[in-house]
Amino acid sequence: MTRADPSTPPITSLQNPQLKRLVRLHARRGREQEGVILIEGARELSRALGAGVMPTEIFSCPELHSPEAAGIAALLPLTATELSRAAFEKVSGRENPDGLLAVASRPVVALPDLAADAVVVVLDGLEKPGNVGAILRTADASGAAAVLVLGRGADPYGPNVIRASQGSVFALPVVALDEAGAYAYLTAQGCVTVACTPDAPHVYWDAPLTGRLALLLGTEHGGLPAHWRQAGNGGGLSVRIPMQPGSAADSLNVATAAALVLFECARQRRRTGTQSAETGSAGASP
Amino acid sequence: MTRADPSTPPITSLQNPQLKRLVRLHARRGREQEGVILIEGARELSRALGAGVMPTEIFSCPELHSPEAAGIAALLPLTATELSRAAFEKVSGRENPDGLLAVASRPVVALPDLAADAVVVVLDGLEKPGNVGAILRTADASGAAAVLVLGRGADPYGPNVIRASQGSVFALPVVALDEAGAYAYLTAQGCVTVACTPDAPHVYWDAPLTGRLALLLGTEHGGLPAHWRQAGNGGGLSVRIPMQPGSAADSLNVATAAALVLFECARQRRRTGTQSAETGSAGASP
Repeated sequence: MTRADPSTPPITSLQNPQLKRLVRLHARRGREQEGVILIEGARELSRALGAGVMPTEIFSCPELHSPEAAGIAALLPLTATELSRAAFEKVSGRENPDGLLAVASRPVVALPDLAADAVVVVLDGLEKPGNVGAILRTADASGAAAVLVLGRGADPYGPNVIRASQGSVFALPVVALDEAGAYAYLTAQGCVTVACTPDAPHVYWDAPLTGRLALLLGTEHGGLPAHWRQAGNGGGLSVRIPMQPGSAADSLNVATAAALVLFECARQRRRTGTQSAETGSAGASP
Repeated sequence: MTRADPSTPPITSLQNPQLKRLVRLHARRGREQEGVILIEGARELSRALGAGVMPTEIFSCPELHSPEAAGIAALLPLTATELSRAAFEKVSGRENPDGLLAVASRPVVALPDLAADAVVVVLDGLEKPGNVGAILRTADASGAAAVLVLGRGADPYGPNVIRASQGSVFALPVVALDEAGAYAYLTAQGCVTVACTPDAPHVYWDAPLTGRLALLLGTEHGGLPAHWRQAGNGGGLSVRIPMQPGSAADSLNVATAAALVLFECARQRRRTGTQSAETGSAGASP
């Protein structure tokens, strides 16, 4: 059970070196130097725990605890370092913190062997944490087998991505690697690449999105090198998302495009019986 | 052509009353008191102009102009009030402003008569401007006929929604009205309501999403009163988005759910030939 160490008073000084270190861990460089990640919030922490990611340090501000945060704090088998409200707000990355912040070793995730109908998502240099987090959430919900993160885009284990993913980053294998490593893995696994491009011959819902697929999502207009898209593995597919003529939306947000293609993959798998029946379902939350 | 009025020096004082007024217009109350909206940025302004929304005032900072902003500023048939860089940054809502800010009368948009295959999106009390903007962008891209905005959620013509929609808010009819007015309109037009709920019998891709539809998007878990969903117009449909078993993503973001259902509407219309062929297409942008 987590409790404040009775021998240690709460940290109240904003000059405390532990606080300064936590602030440094909000920056990618700080996390990389220590090989750790920051997990803030009850929901995200519970998802990390559910995935076997065990924090090494817990920082807690009981005054700020949500009921969910208090419940999780009570269950953690670690002694929490207690912070005053002002101290916690200094180290929090949120507007309305729930008083729970953890440090954990950066997860080391192995590339999985893929099932015959697996979909892998490949993110190349996406910079906005909100987009990366949204894609992780949708990848998880749609049953993607893994997410590969290439290039120097947003850190998939950065606090803002963890938050935007609502903890989904811990629920499926998310692996940062270089382009050569990703290409070798996808080739060895026999994945057909799928890229979204405006000039593709097939609308995504008419393309054959079954079998082992790697959905390539780059920055503006494709991102990944042409040889990935044109030759790719097994030839490679290009698909387009049809836009209403006269629409001002000349392209969709990358996370929206990802959701459309990932759920079309799920639809086609379900229709052709290559995926076991789903049992869960969802409405929508903000 | 827009040019700085040669008889008026640029506004440099941060205490200038015009600047204070522009700051007030970032708040909903300020905009409502004057019946105006703020349009910042070249892309958003060009989309507003394309939709016939003509600014009444232009504020410009040539030092900050992007090439696109300079091009639009040169074309506008208004004399711009020039601001110093510091003055513009004070009135901008952006981190990297492009030096173009306009005031326009709030658009008065009529409820359209609906075609036989029209889809109307109904937003009930959605609060996050990012979600509302993303839904407007997707609604436009997917060919929705109109967006109705109920309740005291985000102002659909607020600067953050305009920005997140990338100006799509000007490209299709977006009408704020009360619940009774929306209900009367949708009933008169013979729309069947479609709600996303986790316990719905049909997966969205198996539901008959043709004909005149009103897609209801609420805050957490439905939002709209039960009589809309259960009785609704023409009976009302409930659909669910299937989630991978074991997925940590217990619900999708509301904008993601909206995109999935709106593009499924487009897919079914195309398949059944009730929609004219699309000619545009898109990749994805961040």
